[in-house]
Amino acid sequence: MADPAGAHDPFIAVDWGTTNRRAFLIEGGAVVRTERDDRGAAVVEDFPAEVAGLRARLGDLPMLLAGMVGSNIGWRAVPYIAAPAGLAVLAAALEPIDGRTAIVPGLSCRDGGRADVMRGEEVQLLGAVAAGMVPADSLLCQPGTHCKWAVLERGEIVRFTTAMTGELFSLLRAHGLLARQIGGAVNDGAAFREGVTEGARRDLAASLFGIRASGLLGLRDDADAAAYASGLLIGADVAARIDEAAARTVHLLADPALGALYAAAIETLGGSATIVDSHAAFVAGITRIRELSA
Amino acid sequence: MADPAGAHDPFIAVDWGTTNRRAFLIEGGAVVRTERDDRGAAVVEDFPAEVAGLRARLGDLPMLLAGMVGSNIGWRAVPYIAAPAGLAVLAAALEPIDGRTAIVPGLSCRDGGRADVMRGEEVQLLGAVAAGMVPADSLLCQPGTHCKWAVLERGEIVRFTTAMTGELFSLLRAHGLLARQIGGAVNDGAAFREGVTEGARRDLAASLFGIRASGLLGLRDDADAAAYASGLLIGADVAARIDEAAARTVHLLADPALGALYAAAIETLGGSATIVDSHAAFVAGITRIRELSA
Repeated sequence: MADPAGAHDPFIAVDWGTTNRRAFLIEGGAVVRTERDDRGAAVVEDFPAEVAGLRARLGDLPMLLAGMVGSNIGWRAVPYIAAPAGLAVLAAALEPIDGRTAIVPGLSCRDGGRADVMRGEEVQLLGAVAAGMVPADSLLCQPGTHCKWAVLERGEIVRFTTAMTGELFSLLRAHGLLARQIGGAVNDGAAFREGVTEGARRDLAASLFGIRASGLLGLRDDADAAAYASGLLIGADVAARIDEAAARTVHLLADPALGALYAAAIETLGGSATIVDSHAAFVAGITRIRELSA
Repeated sequence: MADPAGAHDPFIAVDWGTTNRRAFLIEGGAVVRTERDDRGAAVVEDFPAEVAGLRARLGDLPMLLAGMVGSNIGWRAVPYIAAPAGLAVLAAALEPIDGRTAIVPGLSCRDGGRADVMRGEEVQLLGAVAAGMVPADSLLCQPGTHCKWAVLERGEIVRFTTAMTGELFSLLRAHGLLARQIGGAVNDGAAFREGVTEGARRDLAASLFGIRASGLLGLRDDADAAAYASGLLIGADVAARIDEAAARTVHLLADPALGALYAAAIETLGGSATIVDSHAAFVAGITRIRELSA
């Protein structure tokens, strides 16, 4: 990492999450080769051997690792950097494993009594700005089990919020009163959007019971209950973030299916959404970190 | 039920829930004898035999049944009566099983796109007014797995809301990301009240993730996490209801432990709470229904 002349030389970047990882061989800012597998931080025990394996396949090159690999379930617990932070701050705080392998730290933030953390998403979020995919002042969202929302100003993450939206949906589908009703497929449609509108009341525990009551009273076909429930949870999430950020445009780093649901919810609540390629954003972000740290 | 002269004669009332039931021998409005067991509607198959058993123990008397015994998991599915409704409406809509056994119907209501139902709670709620335990215009709350809130006007239930507050807490303690952190005891205290204040932001999915983040950042002892999580859920519930009803006083029909937590949450959010004896309220309500239907 100490060779300024190496800033544009090839390197390997790994977006190393809890359950999956994606590795990129990057040269001159472009992806030459990529691989994806399920060797997430939660299942890997011998990180040096994994890294040696990646180098054997992609090249004997410097390597930057981001994500849960830097957590207490990963290779080494790298301290969080407090937001606001941009790519330069991350580059300056890389945790060296050896002379050519380093881990990107995650971010923390405080919002009154609420704390938050992220690991890995910060590279995508900041990379989206670095690549010019989103404005330097914008509201970004990465839907998922733990949905990340970040407010960026002047290209830095100034604050962010994680909502357990996907996890709550999974819990409710698997256990408890509603499980039998909401196990079906989720698609954008009238039921999903009715759920979004109800969710915007931000009264989740009551809105959820309404699913049960509507079933008992014959007011909604149970075939629509899963879409309605998903709409409720996503609607509550979107409404809280749009209100707090006073932003009407949300830039989504998402796969097409979940991205389409969030976009529909955002539009139902009066906002607009764009979809950003999250892998391209990651590559842009990690490449910039490599340049800044070289 | 057809004998007007019998209005003050002894009868048996049963508050017959999903998992428990409580039977009362009532004479002249006073409880002469009571019994409680776990022969809830979910486990009973032979309702005539159960009722015969109650009569063998408490007396060969007319009987009024309320609660889930009147649902599709009970003896007979009795249609819901749409709110607004008071005791006279319930008395006029009793579902006769035979000449001296009848089931009290539950209530339904609609609030925009949200539907709601109750079975059994309506007798307690309306009985609290009938007995003069609460004003005829008041906000009542029955905390629990599915917390019931009812707005009463002129002694009638005009609308109500069920929040899955207790169920969400149970799901989160048993499954998912937070289960390991929030399994401990819940007591009123600083952590509980911090949770209430955060919960009042009505952004549950995000506030819940904050529990995880605070643990990772060492900001809150995990020994306090259960109380904080309970405060979050109860605070979100209370804040939504106090806002919607514009009422500052809540009359709680609750056991002492849960009643104390709800009272603390209500006071933290600027309201005041009274505790009402829910069994006395049930007896008052069912006695009045008996009088009105005799």
